[in-house]
Amino acid sequence: MTYCLAIKTNTGIVFASDSRTNAGVDYIRTYSKMHVFAKPGDRSLVLLTSGNLATTQAVVNTIQNDIEDEAKPNLFTCRHLHDAAKYIGEISRKEQLRHAAAFQDAGANAGASATMILGGQIAGRPPEIILIYPEGNYISASPETPYLQIGETKYGKPILDRIIANSTSLEDAARCAMVSLDSTMRANLSVGPPLELAIYRADSLEKPIQRVFKLQSPFIKSLQKSWGEGLQRAFKRLPRFDWENSQ
Amino acid sequence: MTYCLAIKTNTGIVFASDSRTNAGVDYIRTYSKMHVFAKPGDRSLVLLTSGNLATTQAVVNTIQNDIEDEAKPNLFTCRHLHDAAKYIGEISRKEQLRHAAAFQDAGANAGASATMILGGQIAGRPPEIILIYPEGNYISASPETPYLQIGETKYGKPILDRIIANSTSLEDAARCAMVSLDSTMRANLSVGPPLELAIYRADSLEKPIQRVFKLQSPFIKSLQKSWGEGLQRAFKRLPRFDWENSQ
Repeated sequence: MTYCLAIKTNTGIVFASDSRTNAGVDYIRTYSKMHVFAKPGDRSLVLLTSGNLATTQAVVNTIQNDIEDEAKPNLFTCRHLHDAAKYIGEISRKEQLRHAAAFQDAGANAGASATMILGGQIAGRPPEIILIYPEGNYISASPETPYLQIGETKYGKPILDRIIANSTSLEDAARCAMVSLDSTMRANLSVGPPLELAIYRADSLEKPIQRVFKLQSPFIKSLQKSWGEGLQRAFKRLPRFDWENSQ
Repeated sequence: MTYCLAIKTNTGIVFASDSRTNAGVDYIRTYSKMHVFAKPGDRSLVLLTSGNLATTQAVVNTIQNDIEDEAKPNLFTCRHLHDAAKYIGEISRKEQLRHAAAFQDAGANAGASATMILGGQIAGRPPEIILIYPEGNYISASPETPYLQIGETKYGKPILDRIIANSTSLEDAARCAMVSLDSTMRANLSVGPPLELAIYRADSLEKPIQRVFKLQSPFIKSLQKSWGEGLQRAFKRLPRFDWENSQ
């Protein structure tokens, strides 16, 4: 499993991801799921990947090779983020189909499918985030739905719904993403550290700020402690039931 | 969908449930999923139901008829809560099998399956909570896992993991269950009000305290407001990133 999310606010985009991959509970490894493709001044793009690791690695390798080979199209020539999403969706679909028969023969249910989030900005266009389905089609976020999630999305959703708005600062959105990841990690062992974070400031067209946090990092330890204590305080202030007041 | 949960603490048991049932998004109705079977002084039992409504209604009706008919066994003659879980599991299994062929003919995936939580106390025994699977087998909670959930369980789990311990007071456990239900309701439209709550005090062998909360009830409104504000406060106190401190 995996948990990745992207949050688009008025001032930019926050990307966050866990790094655990597994094939069964007895084969757990660490792989980055965050891939940055930037050509400063022209475009700054981030791809978050979930699903079959062989498929997502093949997709990332193909994107890189196409850029190096100046293939047409490649991620550095697409004019809109939607073109880029279509291009990546087609690579993903082709890669999945290549192995579909073998997966069917093996009776594997999960297959080679992959779901991805692409976000960033191309010069002359606004910043955007797009979710690319295994089928290759895609949806973008909207002002009413300013974030996208892939993988194990449920545990970390309530906090996003309560905090994130278009006016949220990038740093607050990043903190919220970290809390969302932390809650998910506690609930699902297949989501694990290190946690990766990237922050893209709108119209900078520069590489995003990137940080990788181990579980023992002072920031994560301090975030966990502060959030845990804050929840306890919030909990203690909840209203009493009618029969408690009369006691 | 449904969300029900039971929390066992050192001093008793809290039961909570939503009341929404649906067959597709265009056919939404309200049904209680909380069923109390009490014989004061001898036993006090609560059954929470999720899954196919026809199956769960048939199970509840059969339990009631068996009590009235003084059938052997019935819910008022079982000596252990585990016997009661086995008895209910068998009724559920029988009811599902009765319709299995018809569901298969119709190509329906979900089928007639039902998952339930049984909790309470029988005189001379400790209080317990048990989750009954569609297959009729069951598991009980443990000191390390003091709560059980059925239905849409993920959105409301993080808060339980952070607050609930064996030493939590019954009222705090009930407040936590309400927050857990509220978070789930916000995230999944198929979980909806009114919210039902039952609190059983260990060794009372009396009917549990019961409350039904509409969304507009002063308690729920106050709980939502207080929790929302508490989360915002906790969020504002989270640590800054390294680059924020240097700004």
